[in-house]
Amino acid sequence: MNTPAYLDLTARQQRLHRLAHLQAIAQWDQAANMPPSGNEARSLALAEMDGLLHQLATDPALPGLLDAAAAEALDDAQRANLREIRRAWRAANALPQALVEAKSLANNRCEHAWRGQRQANDWTGFAPNLREVLAIARQEAEYLSQSSGLSKYDALLDQYEPGMRSADVERAFAPLRQWLPGLIRDVIAKQSHETVIQPVGPFPTDAQKALGLDAMRLMGFDFSAGRLDESTHPFCGGVPEDVRMTTRYREDDFLPALMGVIHETGHGRYEQGLPRELLGQPVARARSMGIHESQSLSFEMQLGSHPAFAKLLSPLLAQHFGPQPAFEPDNLHRLLTRVQPGFIRVDADEVTYPAHILLRFDIERALIEGDVEVDDIPALWDGKMAELLGLDTRGNFKDGPMQDVHWPAGLFGYFPCYTLGAMYAAQWFATMRAGQPKLDEQIAAGDLGGVFDWLSTHIWRTASRYETPELVQRASGEPLNPAHFEAHLRRRYLAA
Amino acid sequence: MNTPAYLDLTARQQRLHRLAHLQAIAQWDQAANMPPSGNEARSLALAEMDGLLHQLATDPALPGLLDAAAAEALDDAQRANLREIRRAWRAANALPQALVEAKSLANNRCEHAWRGQRQANDWTGFAPNLREVLAIARQEAEYLSQSSGLSKYDALLDQYEPGMRSADVERAFAPLRQWLPGLIRDVIAKQSHETVIQPVGPFPTDAQKALGLDAMRLMGFDFSAGRLDESTHPFCGGVPEDVRMTTRYREDDFLPALMGVIHETGHGRYEQGLPRELLGQPVARARSMGIHESQSLSFEMQLGSHPAFAKLLSPLLAQHFGPQPAFEPDNLHRLLTRVQPGFIRVDADEVTYPAHILLRFDIERALIEGDVEVDDIPALWDGKMAELLGLDTRGNFKDGPMQDVHWPAGLFGYFPCYTLGAMYAAQWFATMRAGQPKLDEQIAAGDLGGVFDWLSTHIWRTASRYETPELVQRASGEPLNPAHFEAHLRRRYLAA
Repeated sequence: MNTPAYLDLTARQQRLHRLAHLQAIAQWDQAANMPPSGNEARSLALAEMDGLLHQLATDPALPGLLDAAAAEALDDAQRANLREIRRAWRAANALPQALVEAKSLANNRCEHAWRGQRQANDWTGFAPNLREVLAIARQEAEYLSQSSGLSKYDALLDQYEPGMRSADVERAFAPLRQWLPGLIRDVIAKQSHETVIQPVGPFPTDAQKALGLDAMRLMGFDFSAGRLDESTHPFCGGVPEDVRMTTRYREDDFLPALMGVIHETGHGRYEQGLPRELLGQPVARARSMGIHESQSLSFEMQLGSHPAFAKLLSPLLAQHFGPQPAFEPDNLHRLLTRVQPGFIRVDADEVTYPAHILLRFDIERALIEGDVEVDDIPALWDGKMAELLGLDTRGNFKDGPMQDVHWPAGLFGYFPCYTLGAMYAAQWFATMRAGQPKLDEQIAAGDLGGVFDWLSTHIWRTASRYETPELVQRASGEPLNPAHFEAHLRRRYLAA
Repeated sequence: MNTPAYLDLTARQQRLHRLAHLQAIAQWDQAANMPPSGNEARSLALAEMDGLLHQLATDPALPGLLDAAAAEALDDAQRANLREIRRAWRAANALPQALVEAKSLANNRCEHAWRGQRQANDWTGFAPNLREVLAIARQEAEYLSQSSGLSKYDALLDQYEPGMRSADVERAFAPLRQWLPGLIRDVIAKQSHETVIQPVGPFPTDAQKALGLDAMRLMGFDFSAGRLDESTHPFCGGVPEDVRMTTRYREDDFLPALMGVIHETGHGRYEQGLPRELLGQPVARARSMGIHESQSLSFEMQLGSHPAFAKLLSPLLAQHFGPQPAFEPDNLHRLLTRVQPGFIRVDADEVTYPAHILLRFDIERALIEGDVEVDDIPALWDGKMAELLGLDTRGNFKDGPMQDVHWPAGLFGYFPCYTLGAMYAAQWFATMRAGQPKLDEQIAAGDLGGVFDWLSTHIWRTASRYETPELVQRASGEPLNPAHFEAHLRRRYLAA
């Protein structure tokens, strides 16, 4: 096939992929290793590279090449790649270079200062930085909105979940808003009759690290192409060829780090499982952040809180911390499925977690649309936490609106992806069970191959070949159906 | 002052500095963290960036800007910066882009494979990679030679030690070749009458790490702007704003890691002590690799093997490993100054170290000038090790020509800088003692401020303001004078 314009485009994508590799490693290093005085220089370096990547991504030759390539003879995978190249070009081209660099700088500075300010519960110090980040995010949303015709918030959401609008999110979230408070009440009432033995600490950090590595092995992580480190806010970064996961440890409780590691391993295996043939091309990238979270939550919740999974974890806990009655499988499962409203999203159980997302989705949408300001956040937060989870968060900024890295890092529009991911994950497992009737018996026997093979075939190896609705339809035979998530929670938490 | 061309040039340098920051961190990560399967993608990313940096450094606008800036009204510091910008442009412009990218790829691949091959003593596997690296280095030398009129080896040497020719090196090394074998014999004979108590291991890696950090604190390293990690070959990388030092540990002996850390701390403090006002400009960079090694050797040898320094180390050893008779200061000093021919350059004592450099200088010069080939290296190595140090290295490639990262990484022309550095360091301390008659008493009292202040004033803060001969003259009142090094060794190892 004679495809000179297409080949030119793919060579440019390859170049962007290689330069973005350095950016990804430097960002991971910033969170996992960098000493504090290094931040100013790092922020400037990352901003310079953001500007350069943006310049390459908006080269004036691109519109002509995109049109020429569309007229060339391409196979289906190439045509899907061209669609994704065009999508990336549209998003980049909507933003002026100066805004891209200013955004990189403001977000890096705010995020870096946030690490210390969060520890100190310093909302007053944090608010001006966040105002600057929000001002730039609003400008970005305005530019993207003008280019796409979407509302401002939808234009940001589209970067993380292409094709998804806040009306779609609201359609999926509306039933949740209805049944979630009652479900939380019912589960807490049911669990109030259970006896749960608490593990007895302390749990030394070194033993937790070794346990986390064993859990990653159990979940099939490839250590020749990735590693686990520590950071203030756990994340999965790096590049598909070298996945960099992080977690954080507290010696009085091992579950947050362990389940965090299992969560990030889901992200990590998605990246490691992307097709290698077209690596560096947009069509070989992860589909969206909602689909990404469907992998982390397939690992953390669908598998990690599965009744049979406690049987697999139990011997690892005894090995690393010594035997305890709390590590007995049935008790461990009760621990892993204990529902209790709490301040911290990343430590939340599967049932109360969506409440954290509803709250953030409502606040960040109003922030971006200009309906509320940074100074309004604490009162909104306090009100919604009281209403949704019955908790008093007044004055506790550290465990309130300062707990997440997303807003300080300028990631507005990301939060809904977590609960969309939980819904997709429930849908994947419903599909798996329909096709593999013995799936739960296999999991109980420690054979996770059926799960991983299904995910690899339907999610990891398809990458961005299909747009999200087509991926969901092909994988599960129906569009996004939030009823699977409700059914999953009712079965796991209220049945029997 | 109206200096538009100069300002344009400095803005371009700032941009290069920021992008090179990402490159430096990714290179450090490659050595300190990267899992093996990540290497192919990393090598491609680094090569892409090398190509991009080279493209920016050879922009066709630069010759015109350099000429225009030369006609502008500049102060002395700006004029020195312009001189360094022109030097960097000349060196970059001599090389075609394709060679720069091919070099980056070949060197990265060879270095990465070398890590495993060295462990396996696999010369046969290593040799073809090294041939490829050498072929590219010879091409590079040929291009640089054509542009500068220097000989091929001198053209490479000039990249690490600007202005220094192999004839100058040979002038400094010729007396060394004469007196070194006799000095080694005399010192060994003298030390054969001494009793030295050997430390009793094992020395757990964690305790060695904590000791290394304490030694860095003693030497004034700024941990808010740098860190210590592990790698196969110790180095000091990163950027002046965020210095990344590495070392390696063996549990049967703590001295290699400890003295390695003290060595790298010398490099690190030079970088941390560079002037911040012009950071990002070539005039604010470290002067040369010979001057850089003069800092590491001021720390490791002039200070680290100083008779009084053992008194400062002794309590730290007892604290981290428990008390031992071997840690008593006089015995510790005898351990630190023990002279014994050995295979490994980085573990060599101060007296036999120059023999390792003479050997490498002779071989690499012949390799680059085309007088010998990769296949000739083992026999040349064996012959020179037998002649200079009386050691049999036949068949032991691991501890022979495969021990150093320099050749696999394509760093031909670097080795002489170590012994030039040792000579400069002896000259600095001779100058300090002339100006501060109580210097040795202060060191004995744990007050290293006199040393650090002198180095900061005369070396660190001058950065690249003066060319090396002027820096040496200003700092010490005379040109490079290798007699100081001989006098230092005779005083420390044969007096009393």
